[in-house]
Amino acid sequence: MSIEAGETIRSKLAYTRRPESAVSSQSQTDIPITLIGLGTIGISFASLYLKHSEATISIYDPRPDLQEHVKSILPGYLDVKDAKELVQTYLTNGRLRICSSVEEACKEAVIVQEQTAENVTLKRLIWKQVVDTVSPEAHLWSSTSGIPASQQVAELEDKSRLLVVHPFNPPHIMPLIEIVPSPHTRPEETEFARSFFSALGSDHQPVVIKKEVPGFVGNRLAFVLLREACHLVSEGVVSVEDIDKVVEASIGPRWAVTGPFKSYHYGGGTRGLGAFFHNLSGTIEDIWDTAGTESFKSSSFLTEAKQAGEGDSNPSKSWADVVVEQTREAYGMPTPADFAKRDEALKKLLQARNTKTG
Amino acid sequence: MSIEAGETIRSKLAYTRRPESAVSSQSQTDIPITLIGLGTIGISFASLYLKHSEATISIYDPRPDLQEHVKSILPGYLDVKDAKELVQTYLTNGRLRICSSVEEACKEAVIVQEQTAENVTLKRLIWKQVVDTVSPEAHLWSSTSGIPASQQVAELEDKSRLLVVHPFNPPHIMPLIEIVPSPHTRPEETEFARSFFSALGSDHQPVVIKKEVPGFVGNRLAFVLLREACHLVSEGVVSVEDIDKVVEASIGPRWAVTGPFKSYHYGGGTRGLGAFFHNLSGTIEDIWDTAGTESFKSSSFLTEAKQAGEGDSNPSKSWADVVVEQTREAYGMPTPADFAKRDEALKKLLQARNTKTG
Repeated sequence: MSIEAGETIRSKLAYTRRPESAVSSQSQTDIPITLIGLGTIGISFASLYLKHSEATISIYDPRPDLQEHVKSILPGYLDVKDAKELVQTYLTNGRLRICSSVEEACKEAVIVQEQTAENVTLKRLIWKQVVDTVSPEAHLWSSTSGIPASQQVAELEDKSRLLVVHPFNPPHIMPLIEIVPSPHTRPEETEFARSFFSALGSDHQPVVIKKEVPGFVGNRLAFVLLREACHLVSEGVVSVEDIDKVVEASIGPRWAVTGPFKSYHYGGGTRGLGAFFHNLSGTIEDIWDTAGTESFKSSSFLTEAKQAGEGDSNPSKSWADVVVEQTREAYGMPTPADFAKRDEALKKLLQARNTKTG
Repeated sequence: MSIEAGETIRSKLAYTRRPESAVSSQSQTDIPITLIGLGTIGISFASLYLKHSEATISIYDPRPDLQEHVKSILPGYLDVKDAKELVQTYLTNGRLRICSSVEEACKEAVIVQEQTAENVTLKRLIWKQVVDTVSPEAHLWSSTSGIPASQQVAELEDKSRLLVVHPFNPPHIMPLIEIVPSPHTRPEETEFARSFFSALGSDHQPVVIKKEVPGFVGNRLAFVLLREACHLVSEGVVSVEDIDKVVEASIGPRWAVTGPFKSYHYGGGTRGLGAFFHNLSGTIEDIWDTAGTESFKSSSFLTEAKQAGEGDSNPSKSWADVVVEQTREAYGMPTPADFAKRDEALKKLLQARNTKTG
C-alpha cells in the first residue's frame, strides 16, 4: 500500500468505519494494527480500535501474564454487554492476536503503535526491532507523552515515517489525539494519522502540532495552570479542594464548549478578542507579573528522605508536600471505583457536549 | 436584622428558596436586593435573583434608557415562556423596581451589589453614596473582576461589611462565585455571602478566597494558560483554532468533571498525586522552564497607532496582533447569535454534569 496514493488511503480507511450493526466478530485484516505495550494506554487503544474499526489487532507486551491481563482488563473498556465473551470471540477468530515477540506482532502490520515506558533507549531498541520486521510502508506511531519523534528515530535509517500520536488519558474516552511529526516526518504520514482518527467515527479530535515542543500542547497548557494552582495553594490563597471547585464551576465547563481563544473572543463582545485585550490588558498583565514560579528543582519534595517516607516530620514543607498532603486529605487515596465514576461522568458530559450542535 | 444572629440569617435565607411552583409574582420584601450598574453582568444577576429568590430587586443605572433597556434585554435572560409579560408583571407589582438614583435604590436594601465600570474612583464614590443611605447592617457586595475590596473601602469609615462577589460570565449560567473578603471584612459577612449563594438553589458554587490577589483565582488560572496559548500560537507551534480544539477535547471536559488537583491525583493511579509528581516532574519542569513570557508591555499591540487601525500595515506584528488576527480569521466577529448558541451549549453541558452524581 502506498501512503501517497490518496485513493488507496481512503479505501483503506473505509474499513475503519464501524457498521451500524453490533460489534462485528468478522476478521478484517485490511489494516492490521499492532500495539506494543499493553498498560492502561495500550488496553484503552485496543478497545478503541476493536469498537470503532474492523482492524485486526496484534498485541505484544513482555509481561508473562499478558493473556490473563488482557482477558481480565479489556472487557471493562469495551462498554458492551457480554464483554468477556466478546473478547474470547476476538481471541478465537483472530481479530485480537496475542503475540510473544515484537517480530510476531509486526509481521503483517500496516500501523505499529507503541506505548511502552517513557525511556528513549527502550523506544529506540523497539523501533529497530520493528523496522527489521515490518513492511517499509508501515506507519510507525508512538503514544509517548514526552519523548518527541526526532529523538526516537535517531538511530533509524528511514526517519520519515515515525510520528507521535499522543492521547489524553483514557484514550478510549477522551477525544484529543495530538499528532506530532518530527522535522523528518513525511507530510503524508501526518495526514494519514489525522485521517485515520477523523474517520474512526469515535468523535476523536486529531490535532496536528506543527513543531516539537516539550510536553506537546495540551500538557503545556495544563501544567502552566497547575503551576499557578500550586502557587495559590502554597501561598494560602485557596485550598486544593477550592481550586478544583473554582475550575469545575468556571473554566472547565466553559472550555469544554468554547476553547480559550473563542471564549475570550466572545468575552470582548461583538468587537472580539482585540477589544477584550484592550479592556483587560491591565488585569492580565498584573496576573502575569505576579504568577507563581514554583519549581521541583528548588523543592525538597523529590529528595531521598522524602521518598523514604520521612517527609512528614520535616518542619519546612515544600510547596509540593503541602499540595500533595492537602489533596490526600481532601480526597483520600484514589480507588478503581473513583476512576470508573470519573469515566462515567466524562462519557456523559462528552455525550451532552457532542450533541450540542446536532 | 443582625448578621451575627445565625438563626435570623437562616430564616431570611429561607425566603431565597424558590418554591416548586412557577416563578412567583408575589412581592417578597424580606431581603430587598439593590443592583447598581445594569450592564450585562447586572442584568444577568437580576435574572438570577428573580428566578431563584423571592427578593424585591431595586435597580439603578445612570443610562437614560434604563427602563427600555431592562424591558428589552432582561426577558432573554429569564428563560421562561412569556418572559416579556413576566418582566412587565414584576415592574407593575413592585418585585422589580427601576430607580432614578442610588439613594432611591438603596433605601430598603439588605444587600447592595454593584457592577459598575472597573474604576476605583467611581466605585469609592458609589459606596459613599450607598453608606449614607442604607441601614448600617446592609451587606455591600462588589462584582468587580479586578478591584479588591480593600481598595474600594479606603475612604469608608466602616470597612468591615464590603466584600467582592466575583461571578464568571454570564452569572445566571456559570456556577462560580468567588467571594473575596478584604483584611477588614468581618467573617460573618463572608459567611453570609457564601450561605446566600449556597441557598439560592441555582447550582451556584460559592468559593471563599482567603487572600486578595490580582485577578482573584479563576482568572489567574485562566490567564496563565492564555499566556502559554498565545506563546504557542506566536511561535507557530499550533494555530488559534487548534489550541481551542485541543482544550475542548481534553482539559475542558476533564476539568468540568474533576478539577486539576483531583485529575492529577487520579493521574497518579492508586498512589495519587505524590506518585504523579514523582513520575512526571521531569516533563513538568521542562514545560515550566520553556513556558512563554509574552507581555503586553513589550508588545506594540496597545500603541495608539494600533488603536487607530493602522496596525494591519505594520510589518512587524506583535504576538497579540498575530493572535487577534488568527482568531478573527478563524471565527469571524462574534454575534449575539453566537453568544446565545454558546449559552445554550453551556446550560446543556452543566445540566449533564450536575446530574452526574444524582
